[in-house]
Parts: sequence; C-alpha cells; structure tokens
Amino acid sequence: MAKQKPRTLSGFMELLPGPQQQMERIMEILRTTYSLYGFTALDTPIIESSEVLLAKGGGDTEKQIYRFEKGDSDLSLRFDLTVPLAKYVAIHYGQLQFPFRRYQIGKVYRGERAQRGRFREFYQADIDIIGDGKLDIINEAEIPSIIYRTFSQLGLERFQIRVNNRKVLNGFYAMVGLEAQSQDIMRTVDKLDKIGADKVKSLLIEELDVTEETADQVLHFIAIQGSNQEVLVALEDYRGKNELFDTGLDELSTVVKYLAAFGVPEANFAVDLTIARGLDYYTGTVYETTMLDHPEIGSICSGGRYDNLAEYYTDKQLPGVGISIGLTRLFYVLGEQGMLNPNLPVAPADVLVIPMGDEQQGYAIATATRLREAGIRTQLYAEQKKFKARITYASKMEIPYALFLGETEEQEQVVALKDLNKGEQVTVPFSEAVQLIQAGITAANQGKVIQE
Amino acid sequence: MAKQKPRTLSGFMELLPGPQQQMERIMEILRTTYSLYGFTALDTPIIESSEVLLAKGGGDTEKQIYRFEKGDSDLSLRFDLTVPLAKYVAIHYGQLQFPFRRYQIGKVYRGERAQRGRFREFYQADIDIIGDGKLDIINEAEIPSIIYRTFSQLGLERFQIRVNNRKVLNGFYAMVGLEAQSQDIMRTVDKLDKIGADKVKSLLIEELDVTEETADQVLHFIAIQGSNQEVLVALEDYRGKNELFDTGLDELSTVVKYLAAFGVPEANFAVDLTIARGLDYYTGTVYETTMLDHPEIGSICSGGRYDNLAEYYTDKQLPGVGISIGLTRLFYVLGEQGMLNPNLPVAPADVLVIPMGDEQQGYAIATATRLREAGIRTQLYAEQKKFKARITYASKMEIPYALFLGETEEQEQVVALKDLNKGEQVTVPFSEAVQLIQAGITAANQGKVIQE
Repeated sequence: MAKQKPRTLSGFMELLPGPQQQMERIMEILRTTYSLYGFTALDTPIIESSEVLLAKGGGDTEKQIYRFEKGDSDLSLRFDLTVPLAKYVAIHYGQLQFPFRRYQIGKVYRGERAQRGRFREFYQADIDIIGDGKLDIINEAEIPSIIYRTFSQLGLERFQIRVNNRKVLNGFYAMVGLEAQSQDIMRTVDKLDKIGADKVKSLLIEELDVTEETADQVLHFIAIQGSNQEVLVALEDYRGKNELFDTGLDELSTVVKYLAAFGVPEANFAVDLTIARGLDYYTGTVYETTMLDHPEIGSICSGGRYDNLAEYYTDKQLPGVGISIGLTRLFYVLGEQGMLNPNLPVAPADVLVIPMGDEQQGYAIATATRLREAGIRTQLYAEQKKFKARITYASKMEIPYALFLGETEEQEQVVALKDLNKGEQVTVPFSEAVQLIQAGITAANQGKVIQE
Repeated sequence: MAKQKPRTLSGFMELLPGPQQQMERIMEILRTTYSLYGFTALDTPIIESSEVLLAKGGGDTEKQIYRFEKGDSDLSLRFDLTVPLAKYVAIHYGQLQFPFRRYQIGKVYRGERAQRGRFREFYQADIDIIGDGKLDIINEAEIPSIIYRTFSQLGLERFQIRVNNRKVLNGFYAMVGLEAQSQDIMRTVDKLDKIGADKVKSLLIEELDVTEETADQVLHFIAIQGSNQEVLVALEDYRGKNELFDTGLDELSTVVKYLAAFGVPEANFAVDLTIARGLDYYTGTVYETTMLDHPEIGSICSGGRYDNLAEYYTDKQLPGVGISIGLTRLFYVLGEQGMLNPNLPVAPADVLVIPMGDEQQGYAIATATRLREAGIRTQLYAEQKKFKARITYASKMEIPYALFLGETEEQEQVVALKDLNKGEQVTVPFSEAVQLIQAGITAANQGKVIQE
C-alpha cells in the first residue's frame, strides 16, 4: 500500500509525552490559581460565524484569520478569547451575575508567517472581570495579585509586573496639547528602550511635528523613574491641570496602595510610565509582565482595563479588566531557555507492575487494581518480553518504581518493590509498598515547573 | 453604532457557568482516571493537512469534514482523535516507548445536519494502547476495568459494559460459509433489538441470499445468552471448527477470566454476541457501554482492538486497543435526563468577602489573600453597592459563604462568617472561619456528578 508521509503543519505545536506532561502541569496550575480568585471556567466554540467574530472589522488581525465557507455559512476560527467573551456576555447577559469573572484556556488561530517560536495555533489563558455599567478600581488592583500568584506557583521568581494607567498618559498628553496625536506619540515613545531618548525626540519633532519644548516635556515625563512611591510623588507635580490625569493618578495610587494587602512584593511590581499597550481599547490600568533575565522575550502576561467589552453586539455598557498569557509561546520560550524543571516526574505512571510469569498474571492484575484504588498511577506490564526488556521499558519511560511479582511473592502475599532511581529493592507487604511509593511520589513532585 | 446580533452557531455547545463547572468536573475525573492507568496526556493540532488527515479517504465522514484552503495549503479540521494519533505515532515512532498508552480529550468537528442533541463541534475523550508489532490480550482485558472505574467515579451505577470478539464472529461466519458476506450480515443482525428475530431472518434470506438453514444457525448463534460463564460454555460447542473462532474464544475467555482481579463486578459486564461495532478495522475484542435505564441513548463508550493503527503512514505494524467517549453528547444527554447532580457546588467561589465600608477595604483584601493562601476559592466583592445587593449577588451566584468585615471585626481582628445555605452567622477568629469553610466545602463536594 502506498503510504502518505505523515507530518504536522508548521506553526502547530505538537509535544512529545514528557514535555506534554509539563504543559498539563502548567495548565492545572493556571486553572487552580484562577479558581482561587473566583473565576469561573468557560469554553466557547473555536468556530464562529464570520459576521459575528469580525463585527469589529479591519485591523491587522483580519488578514490572518482562518476563514472559510461550509455549506452556505461563512465561518471563521477565533483569533483570540476576548471577542468570543464579548459575544458570550452579550448573548447570556440576562443569565449572568455581574461582576462576571471568567477564565478561559483555549486554542486560538492566526495564520501568521511561520517562523521559529511563532505559532498559528496557540493557547491563550485569559481572565476577565466584567462589570455591568460600572466596575470598581479595586478589581484593577487585584490583577497584579493574580499575575503574581500565577507565576510564583509556576516557579518563576525573577519577574516584574509593570503597570501604568492610560488616563495618566492621555491626561498628560492633553496637558501638553498633544491630545489628538496621543496614539502616534505613544507608539513612538514605546521605542524608547530600543532606540534611546535622543532618537525618540528627533522622531517626535520631525515626524510628528511636536515642538522641541513639548518633546522635552514628553521625554521628561516618561523618564520619571524610581520606587513606586517616588513615581507617584513625581506624578503629583502634574495634578490639577487635567481632570483625566487626576483620575488616572488616583487609580494608579489605589492600585499601588493595596499591593501589600494583595500579597504582591514590591520587588515584583513597578509603576512604569513607558507601558502603553498597543491596543486602543484600553482606558485605565494597563499591565505587562517581563522576565527580568529575559527582557528580549517581551511581555509574558499583558492586559488592562477597558470601558466597553461588547459594544459591537449590545448597547449595554460593559466595562472590564483582563489579562492574557500566550501560553504556547511562553512554553516554547521556557523550553528554549532550559527553564522547564527536568527533575519533575514526566512518566505517565508511578509504578510498573511486572508479573514474573504467566501464573502471576492474576496476582499482578489484582495488585495493580489495589494500587489504583490507593490513587497510585499504575501501569501493568503485560507483554511477553524478557525481564531485561521490561526493566528497560520502565527506565526509558522514567517510571520511578517497579513491582516484581513472582511465585514466592504471590505465595507470601508480598511484593518486591524496586526504586529504579536509587536501584534499591525491598520485599514488603502491599500496604508498606503503597506508603513507600506515595512518599516517593510526594517528594518527587515537590519542585516547581519553572526553574531559574 | 449599528450592532451585530451576537449568536453562537447551531450544533456548537456553549454552556452557562453552572453547567460548565459540571463539565469541568467530568473532564477532571476523566483525566485523573486515565492517569491512574498509566495513560499519558496528548494534545494534537485541530487543523491538519488534508492529504494527511484524509489519507484513508472515502467513507461517510469525508462529506462532513470542515475542509478549506489557507494560502496554498489544503487544510482540514480533525473529525476524530484516532487519525491524529496514527499520524503522531508514525511521526514520533522512534521517540516513543511501546506499549504506548495515551489519552486525549479534545474537540473534533463534523459538519452533520444540525439537529437536537447532535453536535458539529464536540469533545471526544479517547484512550488507546498501541503496541509495536504485538500487543498482549491482557490489554484488552484491562479496558473494561477502565470503563468501569471511569463511570463509577462519575457516579453512574446502572450501566453495562458489553463485550464481544470480532474473531469469534468472523470465525463463526466462516464456519457457516458466510465469510465473504460477514460485514453485511453483521449489519443486519445488528437490527435484532429493533426489528426482532423473524424480520432479521427474512432479511438474511431475502436480501443476502442466505439459506434458511444457515439463517437459523446465525439466529441460534446470536441468541446465545446468559451469564458470562454460560455464554462461554455455549461457545465451546463451536470449538475446533475454525482456527480464528478458537483464538477469539480464547481471547474472550481471558477477558472474562480477569474481570474480578481488574475490579469489574459481573453486574456491570456482559459478553454479548450481538455487539459487532460498525467499523471494519476492529479485529478482536469490541466494547459498547449502555445505560441500563436509557438503552435509547445507545453506547456511551465504545471501541475495540485493531491490528494496524497507522497503515496509511508507515509499514510498521502497530496493533492497538482503544475506547472513546463522545463527551459532549453524553453531557447533553445527562442534562436532558436530569442526571447531573444539582447538589454539587457550581459557584465559582466558596466565599464572598464583603467589606462593610470603604475603610475596611484593606482588611477585606488582606483577608481574601489569606483565604486564598489557605486554598479557599475567594471572591472579593469590591463594588459600591447596597448591602442587600451584595447578598443577592452571593445568593444568585450560589456562593455558600459570605464574610462580612466591618469596623468592629477589623478592630477585634475577627470575621463575621455567614453560611448562606443555613442562614447562620458566627463571629470567629480567621483560623476558625477557615476550618468551618473547609469543612463545609468538603461536605458539599461529597456527591458525584451523575445521579440516577
């Protein structure tokens, strides 16, 4: 028979079992952490009607959409989890309670040019808090706490949550008469890290027709640095000149004020006036999260406050705040940087049960059943292979324990338990084997997924 | 602004938060149970190259495929999890250990005619054990144990795992000279439950040109019923006439022999000679699982043994055995039948923390942080609403506990804890509140997802 060469499309992540186990662990930690903050799980379709999904229209994203016809339906694959959330809230508005807090971890699709580390199918892990008409600033203050706990639980320590407020930025630009150009200016200022202050100044003057004096004011403003308190104090100098600015400064101060109560250490948080986020729908607090030792990776968790989640679907005013982790890319980067803890178990089973002869098949099966009842992940090795091949299998699978069951063991109703990492073997009653295995598994699972 | 009417495509399940929590619970139980048997999690792309996905070609499925072009690529959405598994094993053969045991819970796509209870996007939950060249019969004997534990953990009791062996069937049909027609005959015999023995006999004679004598033999064979032992004894009468049959009978006997050791009660298992499974790639044991009180639903978990998983991609002989649960349809049916336990918590949080005034905001935040550190799912209620609105929110969300934090509580460093189900309120130190909440949550989570 002629064979079709099997392949996986480029830009689509498909992991081997070991790395997949790490990915599963990360997803489990995300689910648990988001749940701790009262977010409910949602799952929306991957396919939506194009007219619904693309109601907002335009933008860079549209070219990348996977869009196709099926029958007489014009369909598209979702390219993020925010538009489906807007649709969901608009449809189910009457059945939801607000604030509505949801998390969703799901695949999204963008037909980008394939290149290393770029994915066309990738997981996003999103949380959003949606208010009905209003949403208190405390929700914006809570977000850094969720980011902090999420990455801490994953094992990351050297990261910084960088926070700004769009009202502060827009208010400032209004003060200096650049209100109409604020989007263009923010895009230019965003290049500060890359091209330096002098070049930013030139661009402002030459390309955006800003006067030299105003350009200096802009550079002076975004150069404000220091501890959170120092930045807030410096911003107070601008108070009283623009109402929007003052509101933004109050919000930013509130976010900083409750950091400690929310359990976020100062070391993992910074007010950073250079953060703007590209998307123009953010209207309040904005967040980026960077790995201190890998600034080149960019933000690993971003988001912000917006005023109107579902304006394309409903007249209801639905303000919200949300953040998103690009999980597939993060996982890829962690792997590339060697930051996935290799000491965590990735074997699919904790114990391999090996009958020494056909006569012990029944005893082996009954023992495997009892192990599973004790919550131990157990694989029964049933193949007719030489003893050495069985041990090789366990060791290649990195299964930590093997249980040998021969005639003697069955007669005496004991088990021969081998710790395959230490190479030590003991013959013990079943209950003792369970305790040894459970203790071993607990110890092996102590570490965190990410190691720095 | 003109609004786009938001809608979700028909045939696509989108759950409200409460039911979604139940779905999440079911998925968690599946993951845990599959892991107990040493299956590793896999996640393959939803989009595949059409030439790879449709290598087998033909069949009813092909018309239903979501297939489209993107750039110059011919792409398709997966319609099951078996073809992607075959592709995966063929690609990664050299990096896998065999037997290779994987589970995958993922969405698949079939553009069927939309009708109530039929889905175009639906979850399948699959497990497969793949051997390299050979795979021992014990693996086939283990499958009923996995089915049994899965449904038991979900809370189902009145179900039956019905098992047959294709070698027994094909061997028997060879014995009576119907080898060439065995597929057609099995399809006809499959109607026994619906149309009765007389009509099956007529169809065999009239449509398939079977002689009356042979038709009687067929009906006599598939009428074999009774306890597992009785059926096996009756089958022994046919031994020695066909080699394939004898092998099949040995296999069936082995599967039955180890049932008890695998922890499967007789009541939940039956050898049933009418089970054939439509798919012609099954070659040994086949499985169906029916709900005893809802036979109309059909099989909720089916599968079987096959000889060659990846024949379209590789010359390697890769026999396997697997089962699949159509999770979305099962969930839908359970909902329709009122079988989803309404007593299990579906609230996104266990506690709603309510500051009684703005001055208690800090105390409320710190208390919420401590609750989360204790592993309690906590929502901070931050909105500026009247006290009654806050309580209504908690009760509509079905959050079981509220924590009121006023001036007195903060001064005395205690919390006012209200059990919203019982309507009882106590003022206690934080640590005591944690204990009360944890005990309450544990008690509330005792039940199983499915109730009969």
